[in-house]
Amino acid sequence: MAKSYDKLKTYMDKAMAIKTAMTLFEWDNETLAPKEAGELTSHVIGVLSGEYFQAVTCDEMRKLLKQCGEEGGLSQAEAANVRELSQELEQIECIPQDEYQDFARLTARATSVWAKAKQEQDFDAFAPTLKKVIDYQKKFAGYRKKNGKKLYDVMLDDYEKGFSMENLDEFFSLMKKELVPFLKQVVDDGKQIDDSFLTGDYSEEKQEKLGRFLAAYVGFDFDRGVMAVSAHPFTTNLHNKDVRITTHYTDCMDSSLFSVIHEAGHGIYELGIRDDLTLTPAGQGASMGMHESQSRFFENIIGRNRAFWVPIYKKVQEMFPEQLGDVNLDRFVEAINKVTPGLIRTEADELSYSLHVLIRYEIEKMLIEENLDVEKLPEIWADKYEEYLGIRPENPAQGVLQDIHWSQGSFGYFPSYALGSAFGAQLYYHMKKTMDFEGLLEDGKVDVIREYLRENIHQYGKLKTSRQLLKDITGEDFNPEYYVRYLKEKYKKIYALD
Amino acid sequence: MAKSYDKLKTYMDKAMAIKTAMTLFEWDNETLAPKEAGELTSHVIGVLSGEYFQAVTCDEMRKLLKQCGEEGGLSQAEAANVRELSQELEQIECIPQDEYQDFARLTARATSVWAKAKQEQDFDAFAPTLKKVIDYQKKFAGYRKKNGKKLYDVMLDDYEKGFSMENLDEFFSLMKKELVPFLKQVVDDGKQIDDSFLTGDYSEEKQEKLGRFLAAYVGFDFDRGVMAVSAHPFTTNLHNKDVRITTHYTDCMDSSLFSVIHEAGHGIYELGIRDDLTLTPAGQGASMGMHESQSRFFENIIGRNRAFWVPIYKKVQEMFPEQLGDVNLDRFVEAINKVTPGLIRTEADELSYSLHVLIRYEIEKMLIEENLDVEKLPEIWADKYEEYLGIRPENPAQGVLQDIHWSQGSFGYFPSYALGSAFGAQLYYHMKKTMDFEGLLEDGKVDVIREYLRENIHQYGKLKTSRQLLKDITGEDFNPEYYVRYLKEKYKKIYALD
Repeated sequence: MAKSYDKLKTYMDKAMAIKTAMTLFEWDNETLAPKEAGELTSHVIGVLSGEYFQAVTCDEMRKLLKQCGEEGGLSQAEAANVRELSQELEQIECIPQDEYQDFARLTARATSVWAKAKQEQDFDAFAPTLKKVIDYQKKFAGYRKKNGKKLYDVMLDDYEKGFSMENLDEFFSLMKKELVPFLKQVVDDGKQIDDSFLTGDYSEEKQEKLGRFLAAYVGFDFDRGVMAVSAHPFTTNLHNKDVRITTHYTDCMDSSLFSVIHEAGHGIYELGIRDDLTLTPAGQGASMGMHESQSRFFENIIGRNRAFWVPIYKKVQEMFPEQLGDVNLDRFVEAINKVTPGLIRTEADELSYSLHVLIRYEIEKMLIEENLDVEKLPEIWADKYEEYLGIRPENPAQGVLQDIHWSQGSFGYFPSYALGSAFGAQLYYHMKKTMDFEGLLEDGKVDVIREYLRENIHQYGKLKTSRQLLKDITGEDFNPEYYVRYLKEKYKKIYALD
Repeated sequence: MAKSYDKLKTYMDKAMAIKTAMTLFEWDNETLAPKEAGELTSHVIGVLSGEYFQAVTCDEMRKLLKQCGEEGGLSQAEAANVRELSQELEQIECIPQDEYQDFARLTARATSVWAKAKQEQDFDAFAPTLKKVIDYQKKFAGYRKKNGKKLYDVMLDDYEKGFSMENLDEFFSLMKKELVPFLKQVVDDGKQIDDSFLTGDYSEEKQEKLGRFLAAYVGFDFDRGVMAVSAHPFTTNLHNKDVRITTHYTDCMDSSLFSVIHEAGHGIYELGIRDDLTLTPAGQGASMGMHESQSRFFENIIGRNRAFWVPIYKKVQEMFPEQLGDVNLDRFVEAINKVTPGLIRTEADELSYSLHVLIRYEIEKMLIEENLDVEKLPEIWADKYEEYLGIRPENPAQGVLQDIHWSQGSFGYFPSYALGSAFGAQLYYHMKKTMDFEGLLEDGKVDVIREYLRENIHQYGKLKTSRQLLKDITGEDFNPEYYVRYLKEKYKKIYALD
């Protein structure tokens, strides 16, 4: 180990410890903290964020990062940490520390404001907070932007390096061109599918039991992870021995079921990161897109696959004899794949899913690049849903308030969901060439598939970018055509089209 | 505000924020964290404890504390914070930082080692860890001791200033002299009490419902607090808008019930601390003894009082019609006050309780002052239980492994339980002079009693010591005779003695 890197480790450990503490506060805030804790806890988080800022931007850190670069002789993991820390330094050093801390305090509270507003279906109660969050994010992106880069491109870079508005416009226009008419065809000409039995008297207790079974079945290790309840399902990663997922329960059993498999996919990614990388800056998923590729791979390519249910459907029927006793496997699989253009992204079928993301992408561009007035959001949102999906939300909880992301300041995150789905499809077609994918699922061997993903993706953390991972695995650069092909093949079959 | 104090606040905020983060990790560790998280999380806690050490002992802190003392002009709260920080500085500056961090890492893991050993009734699995904890605590006390003070006196000072071994020997010998023969009299000559109905098929779900009802009924505010489950019930305080209690469930309904009221008492103390004190060093309970005085006041003087149950017992019967439908109020109250010398401190009746504490006090003195070999603990423990309570534990889980305290390095804490009970009795006799205590309880007005305690004790945090509080409220110095009087009056009546 290079001498400077050895010294750097002390400062890196400090930054990571404070970051881990803030992550725990975030988890706690979303899952357990009492209603009135917000203000004082956000003060604590503000102070911690100041310490994080100091840890990353202090003179010793700068000096040691520079020396590490000059000395060389670093291992791949060490070099990745130096690179990640240098990027983090570059990201935040241009922000005045007091603004950085103010923003941390603001977002620590904004999620509660959002949750309450959503519960009360009151967009106006959230609008002023959202406006502040947007203003900060634009200001920060302004501090960081170089060479005339656009603000939204600066933000996109946080989640998926190498995918600018130019790339995304192209990607989403392909989606629009191919999927909008195909969706219409499915809805108009496809066969009728009954999914009424998925909604009903499914007790929370049994849904939780099923969720825990499925999470464990796909490989989420409960000795190194926990599952809890929150308003919006999410995954938290403290380190590769402590990864946490949440879900929520409604009377639609498939809502919680697939959110559990989705979050388990995120969790499995983080649990699979190499021991020498965890608790270091490089010890996290390669990018948000790659993360979503894994969660959506588990949710859809595995979880909505008929083969997946072959060995376990009987067990599910036994858990819900009244609701599913008379529903055979084929009807169940059709139901969980039913295409119904709806209002809620997290409950969308795979086919309309990317249109939900497209809507958010277009609105984010308007908010960041065109100074769209926050007050106008509910209407714009409704108009776009009407345009692309043919439906309008009746209230903001079904519309603009449905997602937590903006309250956390995550502008530029949404495209990752669609990109991730496309990454997943590309991986899927490649994997089918190297293994009997559906055969493995039918034999209950999810572990072989999971191990392939761990071996080829998860273990590396941020050692490779998402584009590199795709290239190394599939031999090709990112190619969204696979995603279109996957959706068309799948739904033509289910809906008996052609 | 004095100018130096203004600057001090930045450093104080930093120390408090890191401490609050470590408190959250501790809570999380005891209630939720996955089994395998311990090692990596203890690394994070080790780093944070180093940051805390630095925050308290840095040159700026020293300089500003000195300046604040010299400048004067501080408010009572400010002066208390300067005093508390100065004491903290004095406490830890003599410890080498690496040892301080090692100890934080050790105790972060020791509680899991203890929990597992307890579960498996295997003292040997815990002994090496316990030995390390004791060695550290003795070493640290050695660093801190001055003027020939004894090591155990240094430790006692952490929990109850002004109560040395000399005072405690006197206190406990009064307990022994008065209570050992009285306990024998109650057991031998008192009437027979049936409490069999308290054990049985009490579902966890209903026990939790009752626990939440009672906690709220005595005044634990669930908008500013939460309740969870842990191996050993405890209270965690992040700030006065976020206080957390835990309980555990067995088939004895009174075990969880009174642990909830006990922890709610701790919680109510912390929730009652003034807004200008919370999240500052002076913003916590005056001492451990005063803390236990409040928890045990709620548990026993309120919670095991017949008057307390008058307005609510019908509700309890309705919750458990099969178990309590035929048990009238008097039989219930007798049962929850039944004296049975037992093995478990937290489940002890009020009368034998202080003997459990006495045993721990005597053993701690032996461990710290007489270098008692850790290996011998189970036997010594059993011998003392036989001597004072006439029973021997069958396994270490019922004996030396029952309490969490030593795994956390809390040597010197136990005496607070007995002192607190004695503080409580002194407060009780004084309060009876100023209010119709039992009448209020019968009218369901716990809030009047709670408000009295908030007004006279809770709000002050550490602005006053426990002795000062007792003096200001009752006009007398600490007087343990009230405790003896309370126990004798109460149990003579219940057991129809004299």
